[in-house]
Amino acid sequence: MNINENYLKLQDSYLFSTIAKKVKEFADNNPKADIIRLGIGDVTLPLAPVVVEAIKKAADEMGIKETFKGYGPEQGYAFLREEIKKYYLKKNVDLNSDEIFISDGAKSDLGNILDIFGLDNVVLVPDPVYPVYVDTNIMAGRKIIFADANEQNGFLPLPDENIKCDIIYICSPNNPTGAVYDRNGLKKWVDYALKNNSVILFDAAYECFIKSKELPSSIYEIEGAKKCAIEFCSFSKTAGFTGTRCGYTIVPDELVREGVHLRKFWLRRQTTKFNGVPYIVQKAAEAVFSDKGQEQIQQNIQYYSENAKIISDTMDKKNIWYTGGKHSPYIWLKCPNNMSSWEFFDYLLNNAQIVGTPGSGFGRNGDGYFRLTSFGDKQRTIEAMERFSKLI
Amino acid sequence: MNINENYLKLQDSYLFSTIAKKVKEFADNNPKADIIRLGIGDVTLPLAPVVVEAIKKAADEMGIKETFKGYGPEQGYAFLREEIKKYYLKKNVDLNSDEIFISDGAKSDLGNILDIFGLDNVVLVPDPVYPVYVDTNIMAGRKIIFADANEQNGFLPLPDENIKCDIIYICSPNNPTGAVYDRNGLKKWVDYALKNNSVILFDAAYECFIKSKELPSSIYEIEGAKKCAIEFCSFSKTAGFTGTRCGYTIVPDELVREGVHLRKFWLRRQTTKFNGVPYIVQKAAEAVFSDKGQEQIQQNIQYYSENAKIISDTMDKKNIWYTGGKHSPYIWLKCPNNMSSWEFFDYLLNNAQIVGTPGSGFGRNGDGYFRLTSFGDKQRTIEAMERFSKLI
Repeated sequence: MNINENYLKLQDSYLFSTIAKKVKEFADNNPKADIIRLGIGDVTLPLAPVVVEAIKKAADEMGIKETFKGYGPEQGYAFLREEIKKYYLKKNVDLNSDEIFISDGAKSDLGNILDIFGLDNVVLVPDPVYPVYVDTNIMAGRKIIFADANEQNGFLPLPDENIKCDIIYICSPNNPTGAVYDRNGLKKWVDYALKNNSVILFDAAYECFIKSKELPSSIYEIEGAKKCAIEFCSFSKTAGFTGTRCGYTIVPDELVREGVHLRKFWLRRQTTKFNGVPYIVQKAAEAVFSDKGQEQIQQNIQYYSENAKIISDTMDKKNIWYTGGKHSPYIWLKCPNNMSSWEFFDYLLNNAQIVGTPGSGFGRNGDGYFRLTSFGDKQRTIEAMERFSKLI
Repeated sequence: MNINENYLKLQDSYLFSTIAKKVKEFADNNPKADIIRLGIGDVTLPLAPVVVEAIKKAADEMGIKETFKGYGPEQGYAFLREEIKKYYLKKNVDLNSDEIFISDGAKSDLGNILDIFGLDNVVLVPDPVYPVYVDTNIMAGRKIIFADANEQNGFLPLPDENIKCDIIYICSPNNPTGAVYDRNGLKKWVDYALKNNSVILFDAAYECFIKSKELPSSIYEIEGAKKCAIEFCSFSKTAGFTGTRCGYTIVPDELVREGVHLRKFWLRRQTTKFNGVPYIVQKAAEAVFSDKGQEQIQQNIQYYSENAKIISDTMDKKNIWYTGGKHSPYIWLKCPNNMSSWEFFDYLLNNAQIVGTPGSGFGRNGDGYFRLTSFGDKQRTIEAMERFSKLI
């Protein structure tokens, strides 16, 4: 009996536990302090009313023999895949509904998709980045190389023709930096992938925050992307589904490697190791696409976007360099006075009682940077930025 | 870019598509035929009223900011893990709630658990068996050996000391055979695993059909099992959750291999590649454990068990050899007159308009056997057995 020894190479992340410990210490020493948390990566607004109604209606259906639903299709019900197909048509992306796979969230599929690839592929991951891309590949023992994201490239690295890689992660709008690729930037990645026979894993979990038609919110807006990219998306940030769990993955028919349609491999993976998303959750997701649903979720996205603007306006006023905030719920700022990420964390907590996330927790290039998020309460965000303005 | 070439070794199963094709042909040629389906492996009774109410109440909570739930713990909410802990206490199995991981169903976790094991382990799978055990290991390229289940051993194979294996699948009550290990049988497997440092993956998805305290419904009822077994269970058959998706996996703290607590590896796997089960679904599962919930789901289990008895009584009357039916929703019968599985399928369809599942679809040793299930309507099951009695 052998364990998967790659797991022993994983580094434990102490990022959020260290934050929690430091905040607790501060609160214990300053029991009257009014701490504002702008580090949260989770939504806080409730599910939209039409979504709640859809769940309740679906629950009633499940309670009656004639309308009860047992096992559903592993790749998701047609009613939801059709809505997603229509959603992509608005982006001028024409998908076959067989190319759309309903998932229990982007995180699961971003990890599970690796099943269909060989173990000796070289993986390219931007740094800093959402830690799951790195950890899932360490678990499989793949070689990982990093693409440096930094102030010089606006935290949007471009391909280097001298470096060969097989699997490429792109997250745009990015977590944690909030930076968004324009068409030209994404086209360079697509061209690289087509030339080098690579596959791009495109994480579009934050696409709903993009407010300009000029910026691509799907990689398939770029010509040729269907031949080299898999796209992951989620209702988590779009519709507050972080605790409701629904997303989708797109594997285009045109994506062929070694003569194999990767869509067929993914379908085989899902039919073998997955049994679909709950019917009640798929009905909830369907409701998001109704006219009322779109109106209601846009109110929430607007709310978070206004918070992001409150934060980014403060950075502008203070001449602090940052990315994100405009087409993203994240603001990634350069720590003032050349402080390290953790120095700035302590400084902000001690002097303004604001909690954020040290950029060093997301990779080597994150040190000296800091993430603030717009998922909090508006009045608290305003209050936090008033304190910030006075302090800095 | 290399694909996972192990996927090319997977055999497509044409079992259910062939059944569908044959039934369609028959129906087209005999438009007035009244076909009864006893091949179905899915539940047909609706969710219990308390479960429906729990979902609706949870949906309302999700619609209010103060009670909204975002990301939950990847291993599941404490409220549900505590109920499962109490459920096991009734079996005299004392679990720490940290050993319980809430899943979106046994199928997902049975596949995903393999992540934490090395690729060069030898896997032992009974034949016939639920095809997922084989396919998930083919995907990983592991060597698979089979334990012959047959009439001689009552479709309950026991360990062979001359055969060494690292990962052992046991499903009891079994799918497809309905056979159930007694304490003595399971103890032999536990002893083998302890002696050979193997890990047993125990699929207990059908445990709720066991009606005798004499038969173990958890492998942890066997001494030493916590040192060598992981148990998978599900609300799918227990409470009709096939379309609602919830289960749980137990990785005991005492299970250590190569100095590693496998529980910690599994926790790392889940926190990296999974984001938990929907809050509304966990509240639904919690309701199953309420007094009313237990009463309501027992009515459904009773209904299916009565169907199973109707079928097995018919087999008894006709002196047909079978396993299952008593502590299982499945009846696994020997085809009369030495017919092959598919010959009997055609015979039953053509002469009694009953659809079942050919045993050969579950493995080499399944040929000559046939699976009937008790998940259908009671009156239809009675009607089917009347036709069966007249025919055979």
